[in-house]
Amino acid sequence: MSATVSPLAPKSYADMPPVRGVRMATAAAGIKYKGRTDVLMMVFDSPAAAAGVFTTSKCPSAPVDFCKENLSGGKARAVVVNSGNANAFTGRKGREATAMTAAAAAKAVGCAGGEVFLASTGVIGEPLDATKFSGVLDELAVSAKEDFWLEAAKAIMTTDTYPKVATRTARIGGVPVRINGIAKGAGMIAPDMATMLSFVVTDADIPAAVLQTLLSEGVGPTFNSVTVDSDTSTSDTLMLFATGAAAADGQPAITGAADAALAEFRAALNDLLKDLALQVVRDGEGARKMVAVTVEGAENDAAAKRIALSIANSPLVKTAVAGEDANWGRVVMAVGKSGEMADRDRLAIWFGDVRVAVDGERDPNYSEQAASAVMKEQDIAVRVDIGLGSGRATVWTCDLTKEYVEINGDYRS
Amino acid sequence: MSATVSPLAPKSYADMPPVRGVRMATAAAGIKYKGRTDVLMMVFDSPAAAAGVFTTSKCPSAPVDFCKENLSGGKARAVVVNSGNANAFTGRKGREATAMTAAAAAKAVGCAGGEVFLASTGVIGEPLDATKFSGVLDELAVSAKEDFWLEAAKAIMTTDTYPKVATRTARIGGVPVRINGIAKGAGMIAPDMATMLSFVVTDADIPAAVLQTLLSEGVGPTFNSVTVDSDTSTSDTLMLFATGAAAADGQPAITGAADAALAEFRAALNDLLKDLALQVVRDGEGARKMVAVTVEGAENDAAAKRIALSIANSPLVKTAVAGEDANWGRVVMAVGKSGEMADRDRLAIWFGDVRVAVDGERDPNYSEQAASAVMKEQDIAVRVDIGLGSGRATVWTCDLTKEYVEINGDYRS
Repeated sequence: MSATVSPLAPKSYADMPPVRGVRMATAAAGIKYKGRTDVLMMVFDSPAAAAGVFTTSKCPSAPVDFCKENLSGGKARAVVVNSGNANAFTGRKGREATAMTAAAAAKAVGCAGGEVFLASTGVIGEPLDATKFSGVLDELAVSAKEDFWLEAAKAIMTTDTYPKVATRTARIGGVPVRINGIAKGAGMIAPDMATMLSFVVTDADIPAAVLQTLLSEGVGPTFNSVTVDSDTSTSDTLMLFATGAAAADGQPAITGAADAALAEFRAALNDLLKDLALQVVRDGEGARKMVAVTVEGAENDAAAKRIALSIANSPLVKTAVAGEDANWGRVVMAVGKSGEMADRDRLAIWFGDVRVAVDGERDPNYSEQAASAVMKEQDIAVRVDIGLGSGRATVWTCDLTKEYVEINGDYRS
Repeated sequence: MSATVSPLAPKSYADMPPVRGVRMATAAAGIKYKGRTDVLMMVFDSPAAAAGVFTTSKCPSAPVDFCKENLSGGKARAVVVNSGNANAFTGRKGREATAMTAAAAAKAVGCAGGEVFLASTGVIGEPLDATKFSGVLDELAVSAKEDFWLEAAKAIMTTDTYPKVATRTARIGGVPVRINGIAKGAGMIAPDMATMLSFVVTDADIPAAVLQTLLSEGVGPTFNSVTVDSDTSTSDTLMLFATGAAAADGQPAITGAADAALAEFRAALNDLLKDLALQVVRDGEGARKMVAVTVEGAENDAAAKRIALSIANSPLVKTAVAGEDANWGRVVMAVGKSGEMADRDRLAIWFGDVRVAVDGERDPNYSEQAASAVMKEQDIAVRVDIGLGSGRATVWTCDLTKEYVEINGDYRS
């Protein structure tokens, strides 16, 4: 947690109304930080349907392994998240720490160990002393409140400079439902997954299998389309829970992911996921500028995304953005190195609305002044037309600044 | 070209003896820089056998396209290299510039256009005005000298802080031959290729096809095993020429790449390529530390190399090195994101001779002090044992510093 808030931070936090069926509490357990909360407990008084997507790392953290196993049950009664220590690469001790935490949480809420989900974020490789917080879970389960979302988001921050919250509403069969989400993440951010931790809860009544389909589909153009530094965490966890409270309002039962009644909910969920994902990029370590990279005209959508990520992850593109340099030659370089089909003589590149290159060379009407003016903005759109097909993708990233180097050179995060 | 020489630079330049059959000259054409040379001409008075490897970028520069076409002839009489402008993404104008330069060089030395090779390095996307230097080639062809290697290396520098030269000798059938090479490159450096430009000349008598095999094999563990910033240039060019002058000393004719008489030459060539490649890393933009990443115990050698590159290209690993932070958790992260087979519980990691992690957790004898002492060195060895097979690879990189961001944010290079 930094003293200085990212200049790209939202001007205000969303006002987070309660979501029926989930309560939250936080504690300051002193796992690593002093004078701040570092443990979050979410309690579902009735079993909530659960879905999750996780890091593709071959060396996932102990909590990721734990969650994946419990997800087969599809039911959640408690979620415990700590910041300050990722419980990753902690071997047998790591598994002991998840087992101890889960047992304490299960006892606190009166559920089975298989209905508990865990996440940890922070330093990799240091043993996590779960005794520091497992003793407080009893108390947290009792004191947990419905109206506590912003505090929940604060407790899971590490190098984040602001808490990330978002809320949406939708109707299912005419019945209003709510979706709230929190996220944390600022570095070690790249698909897949692009966040370190995010927890989303709805009061809709949706079966776990359907929830999983919605989440798996929703993550592609949102959390898996943002990158800060191309590094993928061992701990990335995005979970979606449905408490089902809306069933009491007459929400019709959902029959499957293709159910037409889900249209509005699906759109609201995807919009919320995108909101949270972009908040993560806007808090990218050392970020001063937000960049949306759109590639169109690629062979197909997957190729477009790979080219867009090649541009978004290029240190030379990102330092040029930091330097407000309209260096479109580096965009060409990044297209070229992506390995995807591209024909130099068909490429066109825009910074904002300024076309800087077309037909394999600098735009005949190129204006350094106009291009430079775009680069001075805080939000910059880079668009590339490959000129070969109809594949399209947008990814989001931030600039690479000296502050990124400072944050990551000085701090064992 | 920077006023400050990299702290990792060699303490002295190799003394570069002439190589019979090749002469060089340079000129200050004012393409971009003031007060320095920016054009190099190499002249082979008799046709030299030619081999080359080039960028895998899908958007290669005009000179790369030009060289690839001429390489089918296998013979070189002249090489013209300019710095300050890459002649990349310059469309029709770019092809006109290569044609004009080649015609001027062919006229100057009295050869066919197909016996000329070209390379350009510098800004991408700006039209290259070849009239600036095509007029001086006549003069350069006459004034070119055998004893001019260090000056040649200086003329092709861009953001390099020192010229890169290397020389080796070997015997073929008892007859001594020499191999000299120059290279340039400091940023936009990643396999494949890892240098921007490098030219190597030997007086050995080796047919072009054999030369090509030697070069293609030699590049894997050398130029294609170094990375500064994971960005791949549109212009990367490594060429190897054999003047054949040693034939007059009685060097036996080479029958093929498997010829046993080539053993010593092959070893010397590979050693020279590695020398030049490491000089490029040691001049990495903003570099303060050199890192050798060795991965062993991977499923196979290719997997080992991909894991090693994942570590070497990770911004979080590179900033930790810059901060002298023995943050081996980030090494775990980079292993995990590589996509290659890895089992957390079998991993072991060393910084220098200090084992920091073993069997999926922190080494029981871990000493922060010992690990930190390693990180304070200028040359740092990171070794990872995956514990699964016998695949092995070493790659070289440098740290990621604020100076890298400064150089690339401030300078349209």
